[in-house]
Amino acid sequence: MKRIAIIDLGSNSIRFLIKEINADSTFKLIFKDKKSIRLAEGMGKKLILTEAAIKKAVNCLKVYSNFIGIYNVDKIFAIATAAVRNASNKKYFLERVKKETGIKLNVIDGKKEAYLGFSGVIHTINKTDFLMFDLGGASIEISLIKNKKIINSISLPLGAVNLTEKFNLKKEISSKKIESLKKYIQNQIKSIKWLPKEEIPLIGIGGTVRSLAKIHQRQINYPFKKLHNYTLPSSSISKTFEIIYSQASQKRKNIPGLSEDRSDIILAGAIVINELLNSLSSKTLTISISGLREGIFFNYYHSLNFHKKYNSDSMLINSVLNYKKMLIDNNVNSSNNITEIALLLFDKLKDIHKLTQNARLLLRCASILHNIGLKVNYFESEKHTAYIILNASIFGWSHKDQIKTAFIASFHNGFSNKIIKNSSYITLLNNKEIREIKILSFILHISEILNFCKNISPKNIHISETEKNVILYIGINTKDIHIIDYYTQSILHYFCKLFSKKLLIKHYNINK
Amino acid sequence: MKRIAIIDLGSNSIRFLIKEINADSTFKLIFKDKKSIRLAEGMGKKLILTEAAIKKAVNCLKVYSNFIGIYNVDKIFAIATAAVRNASNKKYFLERVKKETGIKLNVIDGKKEAYLGFSGVIHTINKTDFLMFDLGGASIEISLIKNKKIINSISLPLGAVNLTEKFNLKKEISSKKIESLKKYIQNQIKSIKWLPKEEIPLIGIGGTVRSLAKIHQRQINYPFKKLHNYTLPSSSISKTFEIIYSQASQKRKNIPGLSEDRSDIILAGAIVINELLNSLSSKTLTISISGLREGIFFNYYHSLNFHKKYNSDSMLINSVLNYKKMLIDNNVNSSNNITEIALLLFDKLKDIHKLTQNARLLLRCASILHNIGLKVNYFESEKHTAYIILNASIFGWSHKDQIKTAFIASFHNGFSNKIIKNSSYITLLNNKEIREIKILSFILHISEILNFCKNISPKNIHISETEKNVILYIGINTKDIHIIDYYTQSILHYFCKLFSKKLLIKHYNINK
Repeated sequence: MKRIAIIDLGSNSIRFLIKEINADSTFKLIFKDKKSIRLAEGMGKKLILTEAAIKKAVNCLKVYSNFIGIYNVDKIFAIATAAVRNASNKKYFLERVKKETGIKLNVIDGKKEAYLGFSGVIHTINKTDFLMFDLGGASIEISLIKNKKIINSISLPLGAVNLTEKFNLKKEISSKKIESLKKYIQNQIKSIKWLPKEEIPLIGIGGTVRSLAKIHQRQINYPFKKLHNYTLPSSSISKTFEIIYSQASQKRKNIPGLSEDRSDIILAGAIVINELLNSLSSKTLTISISGLREGIFFNYYHSLNFHKKYNSDSMLINSVLNYKKMLIDNNVNSSNNITEIALLLFDKLKDIHKLTQNARLLLRCASILHNIGLKVNYFESEKHTAYIILNASIFGWSHKDQIKTAFIASFHNGFSNKIIKNSSYITLLNNKEIREIKILSFILHISEILNFCKNISPKNIHISETEKNVILYIGINTKDIHIIDYYTQSILHYFCKLFSKKLLIKHYNINK
Repeated sequence: MKRIAIIDLGSNSIRFLIKEINADSTFKLIFKDKKSIRLAEGMGKKLILTEAAIKKAVNCLKVYSNFIGIYNVDKIFAIATAAVRNASNKKYFLERVKKETGIKLNVIDGKKEAYLGFSGVIHTINKTDFLMFDLGGASIEISLIKNKKIINSISLPLGAVNLTEKFNLKKEISSKKIESLKKYIQNQIKSIKWLPKEEIPLIGIGGTVRSLAKIHQRQINYPFKKLHNYTLPSSSISKTFEIIYSQASQKRKNIPGLSEDRSDIILAGAIVINELLNSLSSKTLTISISGLREGIFFNYYHSLNFHKKYNSDSMLINSVLNYKKMLIDNNVNSSNNITEIALLLFDKLKDIHKLTQNARLLLRCASILHNIGLKVNYFESEKHTAYIILNASIFGWSHKDQIKTAFIASFHNGFSNKIIKNSSYITLLNNKEIREIKILSFILHISEILNFCKNISPKNIHISETEKNVILYIGINTKDIHIIDYYTQSILHYFCKLFSKKLLIKHYNINK
């Protein structure tokens, strides 16, 4: 077991986390803290870190240094970005931090910052080609990614804190100030020659874009309280910008979703994002809460060469397995057999259900996770399964796919129209998707029944189809016949409802 | 690790469960099934189990016999109650079951049935003196408990299934039928000479009383979806009875909370309970979902002499520890130290907070459980902690205490007025109780901060009080000072809000 501490001294806030990596390749977050210290504030034209800001940083780093000792951390990554990078008293600051806290900060350049942010995204969001930006307190990094590799990247001094100061936006704002800020930003963005003209997904990281997403979720009453991989259509962002523009700085903290300690700098940050969007043809903006810090973690994690132990080349499946292992703490479970049976039934029934490969992936996730609710309580374990999946830290799926999987898994004992209709997530699902949930949870249900007889092997499951019937032949041990009959009897009609064909279950004796 | 299967062949339904007991004394339910087979139906005056009923029972027992093999069960308890006990073809039935399913049913008498039901209650509800009844399909057992022992018990042939048949209540009901049923019941109850005249809590088990409680919860919009230990004032039950009386048998299944397969026999059962209540001075009726089956389990469990390993003589604390161990799967955690610190602060501050010993018990539970939400996700772990506590299978507390503990534990990083006010449970809490939650979560919060420094020992924590101040002296390692200061600074004002006194935190160096 290894513990990794990551300190990210940004220009607006300082962030700290400790992750634990086990010998079996599983990992989890075990500690996290954040303090808004505004290191870049008051630097002025001479770019000098102020004594007040330095003191705040040092005091906070002392605490993190304490925690590093208390948690017996094995490896520390402590980095500083734009504010320190650009500071004329950088050397003094770094020495003072080292002396007073014992922490040796590593000041990274813009390219490195862009790369680490990219690493945080590429390991947690399942996209191969996109443009991304990391908007921080004193800089923005913009990177173009093709085929999961950075093609181009740039760091510009357009941060939420330094622009707020430079254009004096903290208290009174005027359209004149805003116009000159916009011009300033446009000029910088124009200098990026490789900015794509064509439509390309845009991914944003950093506090400003997180706040925009939170405000947007509140505006549209989004039922899923999760920011990572939240995707909004570019067209709908303008309303969110308007809300920010229209409020005076002091009143801004009342905007639902906006935290008080960001209310004074959100405007400058929002304008940067707006100008960037205006110069692109991106139709969507996706938020990643995984950025630089997670990038550092994943780079280190992958340097440990765990990939040999991976069960799958799918980010989602690896993440699901990692999560389940962390939750269950042991490997004694029958999910693998259920998963095999479920996928086999999916494949053999594919001409009947006509679902996509993505549906197959969700069925796989649901079958791995279907019984995790037992951990909370045997009673209502289906409800707990849904709760856990909806709140799990699993990467690589869209919000919709996560919600669908929660339903599929929790309906492993039968679909419930009442539960899905009363759920707040129903607004995110259309009828086709509800039908998909019905079909996949039915397949999972049958798979679980077959799996009750621990010795049923996928190779003894066969399907044939006639005009009116689908016949499922199962080779079983005679003594298990009762279980199959007992549990399947009551669900056969459901198949008929779904596909207007009768499902017949026949068994043959494998002991013969 | 041992696995115990329990089969309970009742007169209305057959129930099956498998529990697992680990060497460290922890246990949990791992499988459960139930089928309404109506064994007592159609027995007639000659008390003959019908072929149809026998077939249903045998088919179901075959399935359970399968599961017993599949789950590698070590010990089987298979019992049959009133229907078989009274059947004239009992011997034939038992032999047929043995031959066709391999299960040897043990027919228990009324005394034993009463005792096992009592065992299920006494190990899961924290009461010492009460009257209890177990109303099944073909009999009711009534027992008087003083000082956790049965003083008297009786079994009467007043069951929901046999009375429905005897008085022909399945389809049409008339006031004449009802009156003669009431008379019949009254005569039987009158024969119990030891029925207490004085006020005594009443506890009920069995399907009928569970259904009554469910209907009652729906009627009053009870926000907590839990039946075990649900207590209703006797005065409010009459409304629930009226709902049942006023509906024709066929329409009864539409009553919210009543399951379809009980709608035809609920009336007879409800009348038995009503008549029993009328002959008592009990002001409350408490529902136990733990009865005969759990009684069998607990009797066996305690025969294993685990009590030597118990951490506490409190049913609640043992249950909390059992639950936490099952959830966390390892003993490496710092909760013990937090619990010690929290209880110490509670005791030293008792003249200031003036809370009861029960509050102390809840603080103890909350401190043991406060971080279980981490299991689901580090993010929003407070929310997950509350969810898990509200859904945990923990015995020995009232609904209110369970809800309070969920709030106390989840506010271990700070009380949130918004969360508690928006919670559906707020209707169950008065202002005094909310204040109790505030105080206890504050104590837990400070305890957690102190526990950040792993080497803080309860013996180095001292409190002194002046007219205006409360001073907390903590002996710590100098290097940990930063953490204490960093985290306590922002919460000191809260103490002042609670007690109109300033809290000062001072530390002295234990290394000196």
